[in-house]
Amino acid sequence: MGISEILDGKLTEKEVEIKGWVVTRRSSGGVQFLIVRDGSGMIQATVHKEDVAPQKFEDVDRLTQESSIIVKGIVKEDKRAPGGYEVRVKDLKIVHLAMPEYPLSKKSHGIDFLASLRHLWIRSPRQIAILKVRAEIIKACRDFLDENGFTSTDSPILTPSAVEGVATLFETPYFGDKAFLTQSGQLYVEATIAAFGKVYCFGPTFRAEKSKTPRHLTEFWMVEPEMAFYTFEDNLKLQEEMVTFTVKRVLEKRRRELEFLKRDLVPLRKVEPPFYRISYTEAVDKLQKAGYNIEWGEDLGAPHEKFISLQFEKPVFVHRYPAKAKAFYMQPDPENSQVVLCADLMAPEGYGEIIGGSERICDLKLLEKRIEEFGLPREAYEWYLDLRKYGAVPHSGFGLGIERTVMWICKLKHIRETIPFPRTITRIYP
Amino acid sequence: MGISEILDGKLTEKEVEIKGWVVTRRSSGGVQFLIVRDGSGMIQATVHKEDVAPQKFEDVDRLTQESSIIVKGIVKEDKRAPGGYEVRVKDLKIVHLAMPEYPLSKKSHGIDFLASLRHLWIRSPRQIAILKVRAEIIKACRDFLDENGFTSTDSPILTPSAVEGVATLFETPYFGDKAFLTQSGQLYVEATIAAFGKVYCFGPTFRAEKSKTPRHLTEFWMVEPEMAFYTFEDNLKLQEEMVTFTVKRVLEKRRRELEFLKRDLVPLRKVEPPFYRISYTEAVDKLQKAGYNIEWGEDLGAPHEKFISLQFEKPVFVHRYPAKAKAFYMQPDPENSQVVLCADLMAPEGYGEIIGGSERICDLKLLEKRIEEFGLPREAYEWYLDLRKYGAVPHSGFGLGIERTVMWICKLKHIRETIPFPRTITRIYP
Repeated sequence: MGISEILDGKLTEKEVEIKGWVVTRRSSGGVQFLIVRDGSGMIQATVHKEDVAPQKFEDVDRLTQESSIIVKGIVKEDKRAPGGYEVRVKDLKIVHLAMPEYPLSKKSHGIDFLASLRHLWIRSPRQIAILKVRAEIIKACRDFLDENGFTSTDSPILTPSAVEGVATLFETPYFGDKAFLTQSGQLYVEATIAAFGKVYCFGPTFRAEKSKTPRHLTEFWMVEPEMAFYTFEDNLKLQEEMVTFTVKRVLEKRRRELEFLKRDLVPLRKVEPPFYRISYTEAVDKLQKAGYNIEWGEDLGAPHEKFISLQFEKPVFVHRYPAKAKAFYMQPDPENSQVVLCADLMAPEGYGEIIGGSERICDLKLLEKRIEEFGLPREAYEWYLDLRKYGAVPHSGFGLGIERTVMWICKLKHIRETIPFPRTITRIYP
Repeated sequence: MGISEILDGKLTEKEVEIKGWVVTRRSSGGVQFLIVRDGSGMIQATVHKEDVAPQKFEDVDRLTQESSIIVKGIVKEDKRAPGGYEVRVKDLKIVHLAMPEYPLSKKSHGIDFLASLRHLWIRSPRQIAILKVRAEIIKACRDFLDENGFTSTDSPILTPSAVEGVATLFETPYFGDKAFLTQSGQLYVEATIAAFGKVYCFGPTFRAEKSKTPRHLTEFWMVEPEMAFYTFEDNLKLQEEMVTFTVKRVLEKRRRELEFLKRDLVPLRKVEPPFYRISYTEAVDKLQKAGYNIEWGEDLGAPHEKFISLQFEKPVFVHRYPAKAKAFYMQPDPENSQVVLCADLMAPEGYGEIIGGSERICDLKLLEKRIEEFGLPREAYEWYLDLRKYGAVPHSGFGLGIERTVMWICKLKHIRETIPFPRTITRIYP
């Protein structure tokens, strides 16, 4: 029994008990108005002088912000109350009287101050709404994959080698050896497809990149599906379905939170397959015509992605990047070996990349050649080459960044709000 | 459309297409018998000389173990075939002819050899069965929590401080500072309960312990629920429900895998609330009477846990350990301040601890005292102390180790088989 059920209209005129925290308090005449939060929602609780014992009414007057209380009362429908319902209090017990000066009681604070008090900041209605959407997105991705025959196979976090170069790796001593924190679980899920066909890993990944931008965290979560016998085209279709499923699920289950965030729902409702598609070459052409200083062969940067994203009202795949701008394991396009069968999915409204995916090289000789061309240490990839010696199959996969997806779906300006305890190059506390 | 649906009897006499790998091949007269795996299951595919073009029949003769193929044929019920069904092949295409000497083709191998080829070893039917059970356990825990009003809130992996001492921590340089890999997400979920009431984190945790035992990994996954307003007793009830739900789900959905592993199902079917309970003091008494050399005050070791576990045919909670043997944040028993309101859940059949849980200290003064007594650096815990300044509530939580739970449910001798890519003090490759 929680506040969310009251707000759903299931408990009107019933007696309820709420265990929660005081968000605000004001008094008017002989009535105290409390906004109470219990983790499932927020509701107004009114204490009328005549309804409770005199000592209880005085107790209410002592309540500080964030004090924890247990409230008993009757649910009333009331159009004037936020959310349309209130609890008329019959009894109230103070569990803990919060210290008087709640650090976040002022209306506005600098971001560094908020970040240093993240353990309290997450209690604010806006942060709660965002993190509820985050939890829903995670569940939606998992449900979609589980319901479509995928097996979850966790990739290791501690790895002996790097997927995409060692410059941006966190390193730790490992019993006389050393280990690196994973940047992607992909190579490992490529191994598990031969056991399970369709698989995914879902875990934290790490980049020690010195990027101080609104789109970078040093620790972020990715879901990485990998599918045996999936072509490049099959891969794009699956991404369309998964992203659409996820957006619809959030619209269905977290509408209240999106509305609280004042998120315009119209662009989200447009998310339906098929998504738009534009080749990298076309994208560069568009960018050059718009005056961007970019040459064919360079990877797209954040401003480029933003520009492309704003051309379309649904997500858009930018496909077939130059082989040299992307990772060594990507399958060349049979029609043009200068480019590879990869695609980054750009979220609309200027958000840019939320997914990177590709068909993987399944030919042993070609993969060996690429490892050499990219200057990678072959011995670290022996096991990965084995996958091409024993029952290689065409296969594809992708990685969806959870935080960037939360950022887009909630329409946030900064990624630091998308995860309970963000880690950036300047922040590791709390 | 996969082999699992054929084995479920849904496709009898229908034409199917299977994309998979050759597990074994033998021929008898004019018939080739293949065992084929597609990630959802294994089935016999028979190729009769008269059913296929001559060239195709010769192709079959070239098939090496682990070759990838696409097979078309008709599903037949056949009691003699493993699983009760077979596919009578009409057409077959070789996708990739695996190299002739599959490294794992022999019947038995040393464990170091298998571990060094983990990327191939996971394809073996036994490893597939275990990892399918693992995936089901993970999904069951999440489903149970999601259906019971919990919100997932990820705890950070990179942390500035240690929950349980720095001796067993992995450490990494962090932009001029240093960071430690988390040993538990608990302290952080204690912060998120004030926002969401009931929460859980689910992620990898790390111990740089030099323990080379069949029960230790350096990287393992934990689900850590934390609940506002839950007493010690509420906490035990929730654990009983979650473990029971999980075991029932595995019995329902992964019966085929458990049977393949020759797991005796009788002990699993007995898992029902209430579980047994024994105090630490009673446990020490029993151990001493049985001749174990243990003094009151010492923590229980693996042999002690095994002995206790074997006394009961259902899981058993060992509760109220000495305060000094456990972590600083545990609530003292109001009836005896020498012990704390904690419990470890021992799985039956000698498996020992799969859960550690407790009610947490919610009083600021007491927590400050404990941090001092345990010699912990107060500044690292300032944020954690804040949770007791602003709206403290009684709360409890626990951590369930996924790998140890898999080990018990599958009845395995060694934890290395419970995770796709195990990390131990001697192994970080592949």
